Amino acid sequence: MADIRKTAWRQAIVAKKAHRTAEQMAQSQREISVSEFFAKNRHLLGFDNPRKALLTTIKEAVDNSLDACEEGGILPEILVEIEQLEEDRFRVAIEDNDPGIVKAQIPNIFGKLLYGSKFHSRRQSRGQQGIGISAAGLYGQMTVGKGPRIWSKTKRGKMHAFEMQMDLTKNKALITKDEEHASWHRKHGTRFEIDIEASYQRGLRSVDDYIKQTAVANPHAEIRYRAPGMEEPRVYERAIKAVPDLPDEIKPHPYGVELGELMKMLRNTNSRWLSGFLQEEFCRVGPKVAKEIIKAAKLGERSYPSRIARDEANNLFRAIQNTKISSPPTNCLSPIGEDRIREGLMKECDADFYAVSTRPPSVYRGNPFQIEVGIAWGKPGVDQLEVDEKGRIAKKKKKRTIDTEDLLGNADEPVRVLRFANRVPLLFQQSGCGFTKAVTQTSWKNYGLSQSKGALPIGSAVILIHMASVWVPFTSEAKEAIAPYPEILKEVKLALQEAGRKLGSHIRKGKKVASEFQKRSYIEKYLPHVGIGLQEILGISNEEREEIVETLRDTMETTRKI
Amino acid sequence: MADIRKTAWRQAIVAKKAHRTAEQMAQSQREISVSEFFAKNRHLLGFDNPRKALLTTIKEAVDNSLDACEEGGILPEILVEIEQLEEDRFRVAIEDNDPGIVKAQIPNIFGKLLYGSKFHSRRQSRGQQGIGISAAGLYGQMTVGKGPRIWSKTKRGKMHAFEMQMDLTKNKALITKDEEHASWHRKHGTRFEIDIEASYQRGLRSVDDYIKQTAVANPHAEIRYRAPGMEEPRVYERAIKAVPDLPDEIKPHPYGVELGELMKMLRNTNSRWLSGFLQEEFCRVGPKVAKEIIKAAKLGERSYPSRIARDEANNLFRAIQNTKISSPPTNCLSPIGEDRIREGLMKECDADFYAVSTRPPSVYRGNPFQIEVGIAWGKPGVDQLEVDEKGRIAKKKKKRTIDTEDLLGNADEPVRVLRFANRVPLLFQQSGCGFTKAVTQTSWKNYGLSQSKGALPIGSAVILIHMASVWVPFTSEAKEAIAPYPEILKEVKLALQEAGRKLGSHIRKGKKVASEFQKRSYIEKYLPHVGIGLQEILGISNEEREEIVETLRDTMETTRKI
Repeated sequence: MADIRKTAWRQAIVAKKAHRTAEQMAQSQREISVSEFFAKNRHLLGFDNPRKALLTTIKEAVDNSLDACEEGGILPEILVEIEQLEEDRFRVAIEDNDPGIVKAQIPNIFGKLLYGSKFHSRRQSRGQQGIGISAAGLYGQMTVGKGPRIWSKTKRGKMHAFEMQMDLTKNKALITKDEEHASWHRKHGTRFEIDIEASYQRGLRSVDDYIKQTAVANPHAEIRYRAPGMEEPRVYERAIKAVPDLPDEIKPHPYGVELGELMKMLRNTNSRWLSGFLQEEFCRVGPKVAKEIIKAAKLGERSYPSRIARDEANNLFRAIQNTKISSPPTNCLSPIGEDRIREGLMKECDADFYAVSTRPPSVYRGNPFQIEVGIAWGKPGVDQLEVDEKGRIAKKKKKRTIDTEDLLGNADEPVRVLRFANRVPLLFQQSGCGFTKAVTQTSWKNYGLSQSKGALPIGSAVILIHMASVWVPFTSEAKEAIAPYPEILKEVKLALQEAGRKLGSHIRKGKKVASEFQKRSYIEKYLPHVGIGLQEILGISNEEREEIVETLRDTMETTRKI
Repeated sequence: MADIRKTAWRQAIVAKKAHRTAEQMAQSQREISVSEFFAKNRHLLGFDNPRKALLTTIKEAVDNSLDACEEGGILPEILVEIEQLEEDRFRVAIEDNDPGIVKAQIPNIFGKLLYGSKFHSRRQSRGQQGIGISAAGLYGQMTVGKGPRIWSKTKRGKMHAFEMQMDLTKNKALITKDEEHASWHRKHGTRFEIDIEASYQRGLRSVDDYIKQTAVANPHAEIRYRAPGMEEPRVYERAIKAVPDLPDEIKPHPYGVELGELMKMLRNTNSRWLSGFLQEEFCRVGPKVAKEIIKAAKLGERSYPSRIARDEANNLFRAIQNTKISSPPTNCLSPIGEDRIREGLMKECDADFYAVSTRPPSVYRGNPFQIEVGIAWGKPGVDQLEVDEKGRIAKKKKKRTIDTEDLLGNADEPVRVLRFANRVPLLFQQSGCGFTKAVTQTSWKNYGLSQSKGALPIGSAVILIHMASVWVPFTSEAKEAIAPYPEILKEVKLALQEAGRKLGSHIRKGKKVASEFQKRSYIEKYLPHVGIGLQEILGISNEEREEIVETLRDTMETTRKI
């Protein structure tokens, strides 16, 4: 056996290589810049392949546009253009009417990875990492050799046109063009343009699909979209004319803070007393709660925060966990809303039944979040049974032709799951997403759908799930899937169960109607014969017979009402 | 409708918030350090929850130990200790006999994210990002408030004991203790210790599971493992005494280089001529291929690389894609080996059938890689039919009791997929992994297993998949799943199909044997009666009757041989 093993090793490694000492190893160790890291690991950012790269580039830019307009209190007008340059190269431009970007920040925002305003703020927004748009520029530069072009104008400032190259080793932008113009065709706004290696296709998980879903979840935005092959731009009109209020920014909740962070906050605070520190730096801590925490930690209310050692901080940390503190405020959340979800589903699915359910806000690791769920369900290609006002059953001819635009699939295929985080559609990594996990862990058999263990339920249905949060825990920087934190899984499951119960009672009713209909049709078939029998026995006239049959039918309909 | 929408907005956002101008927005924009980023996004690194955090910490340290010993040409002796400090806090220590770390590098390797030697090298190794072990230290510091402790000794140097705290904003270590000792209980080696918030459990995807799988894939390592509740450490003895040769480091292959990278290489090269540049910087480019590329790009062999503009570089890039260049060398790969995989599966699964298949090395984005697949299959709890040398069928009583230690599951559950990348077991994110995608996209019905569309096949089976590569494209820094590059998917599918065919023919044979057995048992049942009938007709003796029956039985066995 040992020989076989040795042979395997020998086969595997043909060329012998000198082993190395600690000193030799030390020489090759060095720092890696964050740009180098993400350039090599670009699939982490959603640039796995040319098709996805196109989507990610547009997604990052549109997310930024919507966020900037929301922050500036502006009704968004967004223009998305895709132009084919060569077979595998495209020019992508996203232009908006956002407040614009001040000159000094343009190279940072577009030319530096890990730069932005959203990372350190606890406010619900689409972007949160400070990576997305600069990563798109980096991808373009890596694949086509040209850096991004930016035009931006603020209300009072001039229009600045920039061209840049990104220096990977230093993670910063080299400006190659910097022009100033007195005016622009917009009073304020930003245009981002990049040439990338890409592939444009229609269908599921396409840019078309993304734009459509984005319009559904952001009815206050006007989106003009032009892709190769379109003669005219496709226009998604604004459905609401009110600018959404900017969600509040909140302080961290004590329950979500870890010991290490607490120690850091103690060192850096401006508060001079421990009691003030707790009330200043956290939400939901008033004088009473602060007193309670400090007492439980066996510390003094007037201790100097910066002089608290690790063991005391640890006591403080444990005391926080054991003190009853109310949940964080939830007015910082901006859910889509039940009516809007129902409307959106109706627009996209020609279903027979819609159920929507919204959970009250909840908290994971100190971050407030809220889950909304919508279900659309239909039986495609099957005659529908309906009950009219009088309780009569009618067989309604309704053959659904499966429209490729319709999100409802075939009855023998897994349901479609539409996932949204802070109104941004998530198109990839479905199987690795906490939302999907919650769907597969729900017992859909209870609600009338068939399901194999650990799989999506089967049926012609769409399940929409939205999470609104000040911090969405994505499983990767590509922001494609939600990490399955237990609190989030629980809330999604509860929402699914609530909507599922509505669906279940509808499906059961449908089944009851169907079996009822069958029973009745049997009886109805024999009613005339019963009438003839009675006529023979009682010697009544044809009119009397007809009348009796009619009475019998009426009686049946009223007594067997569903 | 507009009213409903307005109400939804109003309900959603209670507190009005002032909108902001471009200038106000600029003030809150700032740089984010990579430590801050990963501290907030720790689930990206595999620290989603306390249970997984324990595994990730140990995994990162053991990967480093195995890599360092391989590089140093040392047979690894690894000690893994988990000690419970409080209900939710554990002390984790990993000690090895690696070549040690020189003093100056200790704070960088353990206290700085994105630092290391493996990122820029094209060599097959377990670690590759330069994040793992410092992230474990960061996690410990965040959750328990104490930084990592390190002891390390090189062969010729002294033993250095360090304690450090990590400065998140600057992404560097603050040394809090720095001691020097003349000797240690090891001639050379490193010990890493960290207190973390964690939870220790047994079973699937546990640390126990990880250690076992690691021992299977690294039979040259001795691992001593002690976890809470174990009186004695569990020892995984070394099965091979030979130090594996260090896999070769290779230059990039021209096909895997993108335009942006090519431009950077042209700027930074020491070669003075284009022809020399191509031959020096890439593998598989000789004078002939270089000439061909340069001709196709309409450039001069003696052009100065640093003076080549973007458009010329683009021509060079296109010319490379259109020139036939042989595949990269593959002696840089170190697969596990067919015998080793079969052995490993036999050790862990009490199966009825094993099939192994190894693909020839292939290339994705210029990176060589190789896929190996093993399948173990069994019918638990069912009597096994076997055919002996003479072709006789025997019913072998073999009731499998489902052992929790056995990797084979129940016959009515999805198969278990064991995933390895460069000999490191991947325990999480199975559903988001390219390997799983390849398994679900393979038609297992052809090979005798039942399977729903898009799901794992059902059966009492284990599928092992190993990828050896100089660069494994993980879907996240947590290194839990493989990105589904088309080339990788294709190779995994081909390997699965090959092993699947072997399995299929075995299962079909089993089915044939079973139906054959049933037919034969019917005939055998009537043979004595045929004998009695013949005896009555021919008037033969009992001995003659027995002889005839025996002859008939023999005839049947030889003619109906399978």
